[in-house]
Amino acid sequence: MERFEHGGDIYSNNAVRLDFSVNTNPFGLPDAVRDALVSHVDEFINYPDPLCRELCAAIASYENVQAEWILCGNGAADLIYRLCFALKPRCALVCAPTFSEYERALEQVGSRIIYHNLTEENGYDLKCEILDMINTDLDMIFLCHPNNPTGRLIPDEIMERIMQKARRTGTTVIVDECFLDFTTGKSAKRFLQETPELILLKAFTKTYAMAGLRLGYIVSSNAKTLSKISSVAQCWSVSVPAQIAGVVALTDKNWHKKTLHLIKEERAFLTSMLKNLGITVFHSDSNYILIRSDYPLKELLLKKGILIRHCENFKGLDSSYYRISIKKRHENEHLTRAIEEIKYE
Amino acid sequence: MERFEHGGDIYSNNAVRLDFSVNTNPFGLPDAVRDALVSHVDEFINYPDPLCRELCAAIASYENVQAEWILCGNGAADLIYRLCFALKPRCALVCAPTFSEYERALEQVGSRIIYHNLTEENGYDLKCEILDMINTDLDMIFLCHPNNPTGRLIPDEIMERIMQKARRTGTTVIVDECFLDFTTGKSAKRFLQETPELILLKAFTKTYAMAGLRLGYIVSSNAKTLSKISSVAQCWSVSVPAQIAGVVALTDKNWHKKTLHLIKEERAFLTSMLKNLGITVFHSDSNYILIRSDYPLKELLLKKGILIRHCENFKGLDSSYYRISIKKRHENEHLTRAIEEIKYE
Repeated sequence: MERFEHGGDIYSNNAVRLDFSVNTNPFGLPDAVRDALVSHVDEFINYPDPLCRELCAAIASYENVQAEWILCGNGAADLIYRLCFALKPRCALVCAPTFSEYERALEQVGSRIIYHNLTEENGYDLKCEILDMINTDLDMIFLCHPNNPTGRLIPDEIMERIMQKARRTGTTVIVDECFLDFTTGKSAKRFLQETPELILLKAFTKTYAMAGLRLGYIVSSNAKTLSKISSVAQCWSVSVPAQIAGVVALTDKNWHKKTLHLIKEERAFLTSMLKNLGITVFHSDSNYILIRSDYPLKELLLKKGILIRHCENFKGLDSSYYRISIKKRHENEHLTRAIEEIKYE
Repeated sequence: MERFEHGGDIYSNNAVRLDFSVNTNPFGLPDAVRDALVSHVDEFINYPDPLCRELCAAIASYENVQAEWILCGNGAADLIYRLCFALKPRCALVCAPTFSEYERALEQVGSRIIYHNLTEENGYDLKCEILDMINTDLDMIFLCHPNNPTGRLIPDEIMERIMQKARRTGTTVIVDECFLDFTTGKSAKRFLQETPELILLKAFTKTYAMAGLRLGYIVSSNAKTLSKISSVAQCWSVSVPAQIAGVVALTDKNWHKKTLHLIKEERAFLTSMLKNLGITVFHSDSNYILIRSDYPLKELLLKKGILIRHCENFKGLDSSYYRISIKKRHENEHLTRAIEEIKYE
């Protein structure tokens, strides 16, 4: 592997004590998941259920969709590659800036990639001009809802118009909702029944802080598409620990509410503190914030044991942009104090 | 997923008390691995190291090869698909019968598949006629050493001649040694340095009974090939539990010897008992045995809570063939007693 440019790379940065580069739930792994993994460790010798039967039933109940609409994978990132290999889009649309794995996966199947640019002037909002780019020559669109690294949700009305147009042009629309549980945004799943072109992408990674366990899923009403995506990979892609963790995670009915409450409070706190320190903060709907600073913040914070995500490898951003995740109050305070120190050093 | 036809499917067979269809180590998960997983459960929240640095170093030391030659994946099956997607062979050779995932993965990239038939008359041994099939039009060969489901090792001399020929024709040779640790056979790794066409495939799945954790790896001296195989998948394909388990598993220096001893003893025991019961037993070098019986053994044993692997979906075999794994003495006795009962029922 030649390059690695995502958040959460604590392995290349040994001195990290606080990782603000990774966007997972500040509450960490739910206790019930932790306990279930420990008590079921002897089951790790078994091959996983290739059909993830218990897990799909639990997800179906949680999402209120049919279990047959669900396909699980080794994290959402696994499914991004699989759906590119399965559907081999000749031409695909991605936003800029956005999560770079869409583009990387599309490149592997030789897709021509066109961009919808999100701009600072528009607050990084997705604009209805994207509709003009959807036509019968466009095979696939990747939408990130809320977008990474900007934290912006796609407005309901534009989402609806994208669905209408995609149905007419037969364009596959992938809506990545891996961070949606941290927002009060509406899921695109309301369009699933009427839109066989729609593929919803979700993960346990962020919501339940299960990044190390690798568990993601797609939801689609299109059986043919699901079958293709299933065929381009081994049958045992979802490990036993991931299946156990997923089932147990969904039993905690307060998790979502508790998380949302913390994120809302701490996003406001962190935004206000950072603004007071003279940093440009872009409005976010999610559990991370895009900021701009003239200080080389990543390097300076790393000296204090804090890792943040530089954004220079995001198309449309440069080395003055950073992404900071929202954590618990004492951690957020630790970060803002460190930035304050940098300012007066 | 429309079909599932491998061993270890305890999820479709609820009444199974003894699973002889799965070929993993009868000793189960090493205690040290079990303990490490429990004590490191809090690390499952972190993204995995995309480069598997600690794990690759441990494997390199165990295999006595360079760490740069190693690429880890989500089980060996994951790597079979990835190397087909990365190398896209136009024409590939597989043996018949053999592990069906080679063919399934090749079909996904539209490869033309040719077969080297292993026959009962030849004791299912791979024969030197295979050499005549290797030419510049052949892009890839899958060899299973020892072969699944026959348990036969590839003779040293033929392996060497395959390497010589592959170097001349530029044919990629994948040698799947996932079961080699259960045998006294020689690894093809002695050819790695001089054969950039060679890709060795190994897994922790069978040797350390880690099927549920998903951990496999390839070894090759060809940096370009490794880079291609790395690029066709996400960067976090190997989970944190799998990386922890792999590192710890390799620290048990007696595991291999202890396992080999048990398998040798029990293979002899099971072979002799089954022969006494009038069952045709084919000679195996590995931890499973191919047998033939006129009784519908799978159905009859399932009624007694015992699962064995039917072989009718293996090319060249039919519904009278079964594959039985070698387990501990009391389990093997349980199986032979059950077959004896069937015979006299």
